[in-house]
Amino acid sequence: MRIVIPLFDRFTALDAVGPYEVLKFLPGAEIVFAATESGPVRDAPTSLAVTADATFADIDSCDVLLVPGGPGTRGLVQNDELLDWIRRMHQGSIWTTSVCTGSLLLGAAGLLTGLSATTHWAAIDVLESFGATYTAERVVFQGKIVTAAGVSSGIDMALALAAHITDQTTAEAIQLAIEYDPQPPFDAGSPAKASQAVKDLLARGIH
Amino acid sequence: MRIVIPLFDRFTALDAVGPYEVLKFLPGAEIVFAATESGPVRDAPTSLAVTADATFADIDSCDVLLVPGGPGTRGLVQNDELLDWIRRMHQGSIWTTSVCTGSLLLGAAGLLTGLSATTHWAAIDVLESFGATYTAERVVFQGKIVTAAGVSSGIDMALALAAHITDQTTAEAIQLAIEYDPQPPFDAGSPAKASQAVKDLLARGIH
Repeated sequence: MRIVIPLFDRFTALDAVGPYEVLKFLPGAEIVFAATESGPVRDAPTSLAVTADATFADIDSCDVLLVPGGPGTRGLVQNDELLDWIRRMHQGSIWTTSVCTGSLLLGAAGLLTGLSATTHWAAIDVLESFGATYTAERVVFQGKIVTAAGVSSGIDMALALAAHITDQTTAEAIQLAIEYDPQPPFDAGSPAKASQAVKDLLARGIH
Repeated sequence: MRIVIPLFDRFTALDAVGPYEVLKFLPGAEIVFAATESGPVRDAPTSLAVTADATFADIDSCDVLLVPGGPGTRGLVQNDELLDWIRRMHQGSIWTTSVCTGSLLLGAAGLLTGLSATTHWAAIDVLESFGATYTAERVVFQGKIVTAAGVSSGIDMALALAAHITDQTTAEAIQLAIEYDPQPPFDAGSPAKASQAVKDLLARGIH
């Protein structure tokens, strides 16, 4: 099972690495990070780089496409080369998935028209501009397309996907392997739960 | 605030990237990935590589040391060069932290003697062999040393740490930014919650 994760400048690392850490346990999983050029791809000018071991041109098809999000998606929704590649991957995929604003790239590629989908809560309007209907769920299955909400939701999505690809016992074994028994110290992880003070701080910018 | 994350062959990517995605939001955060040599460091022979932008020798001190775990830790608990470096970082740190079996490296460096600590549930005996007392909590604060349980627990740890470094409102704003409102599809994330069938499968090996 070939799982391809595209990378691009200013991707969000946890969008990619959360599901990666789950899906790598699947029997026969071969996970490939790909980008326009091979080599390190940075999430921000000075922070983390993940290596793309393949170029988009190297990849003819895949079983699972997993598109992460990040600030870089905003400039890519008009990148025909990337969108063409996403459409090509989707044609042959068993599952086409996204985390966070990765769904904007699926949307820009025309894959979400008329479908329910999710994305990071701050990108709802952009998602809907591509003809999708935003659903305030953490993981949304629509046929073979699976979208997940912001950043950390990719772990939940990947566990659900793992159960579909194998079975629930296997997915639970993966959950145990990564000791995913979340106990956030606070309960502010969605706009419905965060206080106005928290939202105001984030809107002003934490930095 | 300089946050240093050491990398080594066969580290677990989510151990490092989960907390990274939280701590990068801290005001003034400068996060540096370091390794014996600079360049890509792989979590397993054929999968993911994160770039080390500095060598251990480049780093004289840091404010936060964050040691990830992974299969590679087992061979490193006798690596004097790395353990010396960890002790040196700890001398000047404000916080010394670990995720998963990263605590084995803190233990091997002699930092956990007589302290309560946590680790991945499968590494409890090794942790205790270094004189620590295992505590079945997801995040354990002992003075300036903070240990987290397996893999995904680093996100919970980093949010708690963020609140200590700044304040709860800031930590909650980070939680909202990464939409960390976990909804695992199953409830098998700890040995106390997983069924015997799940534990048996994991013991046999999922692959």
